[in-house]
Parts: sequence; structure tokens; C-alpha cells
Amino acid sequence: MNLKVVKYIIGWILVFEGIFLLVPFIVGLVYKEYHESIVYIVVALCSALVGFLAIRRRGENLSEQVYIREGFASVSLAWVALSIFGALPFVFTGEIPNFIDALFETVSGFTTTGASILNDVEALSHTSLFWRSFTHWIGGMGVFVFVMAVVPLVGSHSMNLMRAESPGPTVGKFVPKLQTSAMLLYLIYIGITIIGLICYLLSGMNWFEALTMIFGTTGTGGFGIYNDSIGSFTPLQQNLMTLFMILSGVNYSVYFCIVTRSFSDILSFEEVRCYFLIVFASTAAIAWNILPIFGKLSVALRHSAFQVASIITTSGFSTVDFDTWPELSRNILILLMIIGACAGSTGGGIKVSRVLILIKSIGKEIRSIIHPQHVKKLYLDGESLPEETLRSTSAYAAIYSIILLGSCLLIAFDELDFTTNFTAVLATLNNIGPGLNLVGPTHSFDVYSYFSKCILIFDMLAGRLELFPILILFSPSCWKKY
Amino acid sequence: MNLKVVKYIIGWILVFEGIFLLVPFIVGLVYKEYHESIVYIVVALCSALVGFLAIRRRGENLSEQVYIREGFASVSLAWVALSIFGALPFVFTGEIPNFIDALFETVSGFTTTGASILNDVEALSHTSLFWRSFTHWIGGMGVFVFVMAVVPLVGSHSMNLMRAESPGPTVGKFVPKLQTSAMLLYLIYIGITIIGLICYLLSGMNWFEALTMIFGTTGTGGFGIYNDSIGSFTPLQQNLMTLFMILSGVNYSVYFCIVTRSFSDILSFEEVRCYFLIVFASTAAIAWNILPIFGKLSVALRHSAFQVASIITTSGFSTVDFDTWPELSRNILILLMIIGACAGSTGGGIKVSRVLILIKSIGKEIRSIIHPQHVKKLYLDGESLPEETLRSTSAYAAIYSIILLGSCLLIAFDELDFTTNFTAVLATLNNIGPGLNLVGPTHSFDVYSYFSKCILIFDMLAGRLELFPILILFSPSCWKKY
Repeated sequence: MNLKVVKYIIGWILVFEGIFLLVPFIVGLVYKEYHESIVYIVVALCSALVGFLAIRRRGENLSEQVYIREGFASVSLAWVALSIFGALPFVFTGEIPNFIDALFETVSGFTTTGASILNDVEALSHTSLFWRSFTHWIGGMGVFVFVMAVVPLVGSHSMNLMRAESPGPTVGKFVPKLQTSAMLLYLIYIGITIIGLICYLLSGMNWFEALTMIFGTTGTGGFGIYNDSIGSFTPLQQNLMTLFMILSGVNYSVYFCIVTRSFSDILSFEEVRCYFLIVFASTAAIAWNILPIFGKLSVALRHSAFQVASIITTSGFSTVDFDTWPELSRNILILLMIIGACAGSTGGGIKVSRVLILIKSIGKEIRSIIHPQHVKKLYLDGESLPEETLRSTSAYAAIYSIILLGSCLLIAFDELDFTTNFTAVLATLNNIGPGLNLVGPTHSFDVYSYFSKCILIFDMLAGRLELFPILILFSPSCWKKY
Repeated sequence: MNLKVVKYIIGWILVFEGIFLLVPFIVGLVYKEYHESIVYIVVALCSALVGFLAIRRRGENLSEQVYIREGFASVSLAWVALSIFGALPFVFTGEIPNFIDALFETVSGFTTTGASILNDVEALSHTSLFWRSFTHWIGGMGVFVFVMAVVPLVGSHSMNLMRAESPGPTVGKFVPKLQTSAMLLYLIYIGITIIGLICYLLSGMNWFEALTMIFGTTGTGGFGIYNDSIGSFTPLQQNLMTLFMILSGVNYSVYFCIVTRSFSDILSFEEVRCYFLIVFASTAAIAWNILPIFGKLSVALRHSAFQVASIITTSGFSTVDFDTWPELSRNILILLMIIGACAGSTGGGIKVSRVLILIKSIGKEIRSIIHPQHVKKLYLDGESLPEETLRSTSAYAAIYSIILLGSCLLIAFDELDFTTNFTAVLATLNNIGPGLNLVGPTHSFDVYSYFSKCILIFDMLAGRLELFPILILFSPSCWKKY
């Protein structure tokens, strides 16, 4: 591995983190939280300084040596560095004194998980609440995508960075030039954010609420600013958030088609059709199931739609304690946790397209038993799927299961019940947020030991970067010099 | 599909079931349970008669038309027919008056699951207790393998029947001729049964105990004859059962090598080495974990080894209520439930070899990221794995997950907790027996509604026949005429 290039890329990320940290600094000044503001500006300067030192000496022929392994390793390590510096303000303001706790909270933010170790979020300063939600927005579309939209990091090899950070089995490129793609992606992202912000403000939220909530919904993270998550918002505000969560779980290629007015292409996205089908079917089933609790269909539908949107897009907000819902609804939610949102969206999980590919490969296998002579290709969105995608999707599913079960085993040392452990791992590995039982929406992840928290931090990072970039770090041959 | 050949094959199975049913008839006579004896002989005659009518008119060129689809469909439907006739005695003796309950119990027997809907097994007659355990032995090595060892069913195309019933990703043939292979397999099976029977008798069991227990342990089923399963047997007897369960989970190719004295080949079985490694590691971990409960290391080791052997071989006996063990031990047992025994053994589950193949395919994927130019083949037991095996293993894992989650969702209508539902599906799909919580070793599956019992019956059959044979029945193109 070419460590110089890894150092260079991490350096750029830290410089940008320094810039990002200036935003909560300003929020702190507005709310006159001077102690917190000072902490944030100091950490911002440190981060920028460390980053600057790392990028100062750019090696020769740097761009020639960014193979996939450098791309993957840089992205993973950069996310670790990002989280470490992002956690420091929580520690230094004293709001989350333990570093592991602060790291859990920050990783949960950047990976748009939204799982929290805090039992009382309302005790936090506005500055830290804002930073918590802002990390969702930074991590949602991907910090590399942002950096690449602004500076051409490693020239023609940037694809290997983008590949490590983009969600889904294949990397969608809107236009041949990668930097332009990254820029377009961020423009759409910012566009949705601004539209959502205006809607939220019109619905009666104040600026602080509207900003933090739109960071959460467009980034599909789930940090709330109140202890009851979204419970105290008005029904209109809740419905608006449902809408923006669902929209954020859609493959961004759809928005690109809308922007470029190629409307006919939109219908060809099998994944998106399937995603909406799942959302509607689950909402209807759960609404029917919880009708006796709420009495009125409109209320049942609102809560059902909100929770379905929150779980399938892996946001993790909640309007009510869905942990007390009947077992059928809880089971549907567990299924949605595993499926996740569309590829190429800000959501997590296995992704609808991977599930589609797996189901199609099963169909192929059954057909090949019935008609051994006819070997047919698989199609997604009308295009034939290359063998490589099929193979890597299967490997993805296999490794996903192994990490899921392995993590359950490791956190079982804490002696919590199986439902808690299983959903805690699902909630972190799929970047959702709350699970069921002891990690349900009204509880926090503080029930776990520091050892288990470290396992769950690993799961959040592995889930966000889609397993392989994190895993290759553990392969000795990845670290060999050329 | 060629329905004539399907009818012919099912016919043979029913003729043999008639013969098998004579054994409990004799047991009934010995114990002077004349009412039960009469029921068994009547059902035996009916089964044989129906079977005889089906095989009477053998179509022309029958053996030329047994493609994989006929093979798979015949085996699935034959298992259904086998279970229906096997369930009748329970209904007619009045011991399990409801047919769905009786079918659940019989499918659980033939598929060597050992999950029971009975809360008080000691209330059964000796005749029915014997038949219950005897179904384990019949289903363990496979009823087709038995029939094929005796009559050449469909000549050169028998492979397609064997493929549907043999556990594991590939079919192990000891010798080129299939009938000889089937005969050798059954001779080894009978050999182990006789050795086990002698050991059990020497350890102090009476004939009835020794016979029913050896049927359970060699068939890796889990029906006990006492309400506390194996709890009241002596430590020596429990240890002997541990040994015979572990031996029954080993790939039978190993025994073939022992019989033919090709000892050097035994070491090449990666799967078997891995299986023993898992058994030893889990036993040690659980023994350490439960030491505080039992105080003495020898007692902890005995219970730990018994439960590990019982779960990994998917037998399902228990010496103690492992549902009350610490969460870590319960989690290890859940992992073992999923892994299962070796391919080519009488045990169920995903099989150690499939897990090995999946792990190797992950390693390949990671290597191909680090060194995109070097594409290496995968090896198992020193031989390269064909792409086809890899692909079908991945499809198997995918469909396994979908059936697992889908079944959990469907039985969630009964409103039992998630751990109960999840382990109930695991326990039936992997043909284990007891799960945790409400389906733990001291409870029965009677807590479920008839709808859920039907789902679990499907899971048991799908698990025993390794998914595909059952699934192709649901494909309309399978039923098309030529």
C-alpha cells in the first residue's frame, strides 16, 4: 500500500472537517454559548492544522498510485479520523465526558445511524445539538463526494474513492466526468435540503428545529433534539418529515433524471418502484395492525407511515414508542431494517437493489433446475447484470450475515436479551438508530458496556462504508509495500 | 412434468412405508397394546395398498423421462405423502386427535427435527412412542436412499432423486454405481446403529430406551420418551449419547474411508476438521460460561458437550433447560443452530461445508479488491470449486434467509415474542427441535395456532430437502406438460 497517498487524502478530509466545525461555532455565538463556542473553534483549528500538515508535502506521481486498495483504505481511515476529531468537542465541553461514548455518538452521527448513548438529549447545549445533527448531513451524501466536488483529489483515480463511499452494488455516474457527477449530486442534495427547510419553516418549526430536522431527514440520520424524538411535533410537521424521509431514500439518479427532464427514464428504475411498493404495503399492514391502539385510521396511518419511512430509510426518528406495538408490526419493522433504502440514496441497510438481485438469482437457480439447458441472464432496469455484480452481491450478503451474527455473539457478554442484542446490531449495522426492547425508541445504547459499544461503533462504520472498505484493513496483504 | 413417473415413485415410497409401519405393530403386540397395534396394521395395509395401485401400471420408457424436475418433485411429494400416512395412526389411536397436530409431529419425526406439540409425551402408548422415534431413523439417512438400495427405481436417472434428498452442496458418491453407493451408505448407517444400540444396552438402558434413543441419535432427531428429554438418564448414558450424536453429524464419506481403510483421505476433509473445531470451541466456551451454575467442571462440561452436540447436529435432545443459561451460551447455541452439521451426514442446518464455501467466497472477494489482477480459484478439500457450486450455495443462503424472515413474519400473527418466533423458525427450518423462550426445551410448539403450525411444517420439509425440491413445486413452469 502506498501510505503517502492515504495520508494525503486523510489530510484533506481533516481540513474540511475544520471548516465544517466552524458552523456549530457560529451557532454557539448566536445562542451566546461562549464556552462551547471556544471548544468548537479550538477543535476546528486543530483539525485543520493536522490536515494541513498532512497535505503539505504531496508525493510525486501521487495520482498514479491510487488503486482500489488505496481508495478503500483511505476512505475507511479518513472516516475514523473524521469521527475522532468530531468527538473531541463533546469531550472537551464536558457534555459527554467519556471518549468512547463521544466517539459512539459521533460515529452514529456521521454514519447517519442516529443511535444515541444519551438518556437526556435536552440537556445538551444548542451548539452540540446542532453539531450532532449537522454530522448527519455531512455523512449523508458522503464527505468524499463533497471534497471531490470541490478539489480534484487524485485526478483520474478518484473513482476508487467514490466506489468506497457510494451506497449500492454499483456506482452510479451521472456524467462521464467524476468531479461533475459529485458536484451534481451535492447540488441535488443541497436543493432537497433547502426545499425541505422552507417547508419545515412554513409548517411552524423555528429555525433551530427546522435546520436540525432537515439535516436528519435528508441525511437519513435519526438524532432528535427532544427526548421524545418527534413525538411533540404537530401532525403536519410529522407528515412533512415522513415525506422528506421517503424522498431521501430514493436513488438520486431519479432526481438527476428529473433535473435533466428525462422523465421516461424514471419508470425504468425497478428498484425505486419496488421501494415504493414496500413502503405502501408496510404502511397499510402496520396501520391495520395498530388501528385498535389509536382508534382513528388517520392517526394510525400517520404513525405507521412515519415509522415505516423512518425505518426503511434507516433514519431512526420516532413519533411514538413502536416497541409497544403488536408483534406483527414489530416484525415488519425488523424486515424493513434489513432491507433498507435504495442504492445511491443517503439511506443504509442492504439496499432494495441488492435484495432484488438476490431474489432474481434465486429465480434463476430454480429455473435452471426446471430447464437445465436454458441458462438465462439476469436483468435489472432492463440491463443484463454482469456476473461480477452477482458474485459481489452474494459475498456482500454472506459477510453481512457473518458480521451480524458475530456482533450479536460478542455483545452477548453483556447478558442482555436476544431481541435487544439482535436489533441493536441491526440498528447499527444498517445505520438505523433505535432497535427494540432495551434499545427501543424510548431507551438509549448506554445499557451496553464499553466493549460492546466499540463493537457497535465498528458495525456502524462497516455498515456505512458497505463492509469491504473496512474489512480490507484487516487483511495483512493490504498493508504490504509495493 | 411427467406425472406418471412421479406417481410411480410415490407409489414405491408408500409400499415401503407399509412395511415400516409393521415394526410399531410388532412393538404394540409385545407391550400388549392391542388397540394401537390394530390401528398401525390397518394404516400399514392402506399405505401399501395405495402404493401398490400406483406402481401397478408402469409407463413405457419411464426411466428416460426423469429429469431433475421430476426427481425433485417426486421426492417432495413423496415426503408429503409419507408424512400424511405416517400421521394417521396418531389420529386413529386418539393420541393426537387433531390431524394438523399429528402431521406436525410426523413431519417433525421424518425430517429428524424433534419439535413436538405434546406437553406430556409419557402419556403416549409404547407403540406410538416407538413409531415417533422410528420415523427419525427412517428420515435420517433418507427414505429414497433406502428404497434405491433395495429396488432400482428409475435406472440411470436415480441420481436426480438422490440429489434431492442428500444433504449438502454436492452429492457424494462413494462408487460409480448409485445403487451400490446407496447400499453402502445404509450399511454404514445400520452399522453405527447396531454399535450404538450395544453401547446403550451395556450402559444400563432397557431395550425400549436403547432402541428409541439410538434411532434419535443416529437419525439426529430429538424426540425423547420422557418429559424431561434426557435429563433422567445417567451421566454415562448422556455422555454416550453425546458421542453418538457427534459421530452422526460427521460426513459419511469419512466412514466410507474407514471401512475401505483409506485412512490418509480422512485428513483431507476440511469440513470435518472444521466441524470438530466448532464442537470443541463451543463446548469449552459454554462450559466456562455455565460453570457458576453447576459448580463442578465435569458436570458443566457434560451438559455443555451434550447441548452443543445436540444443537450442532440438529438433534434437539436436552439434559437440562438450556433456555435458562446465560445469554452468551444461548447466543452460541443460536449460531450453532444456523451452522448445522456436515454435508452428507444425517444432520440438518446450512451445513459446515456451505458456511466454509461462503467464507471462502468472501476471502476471494476481498483478495480481488486488493489484487484486482490475480483472480484465484477457490479450493475445498484440495479440489477447486466449480462456479456452479459457488453460485448455488449463494442462492441457497439467500433463499434460506428469505424463508427464515418470511416465516418469522407469518407466525408473528400469533403475537408471541421475537426470540420465540425467531428460534422456532430456526429450530424447524434447520430440523433441530427446541428453540428458546416459549419453544424452549421445557415447552412445546403447541403454543402456536394451526396456521403457524402449517408454516412450521413447511419449514421442516423445506429444511430437510434443502429448499429447492420444495420450492420448484411452486413454480408454474414446473407443472407444464412436455
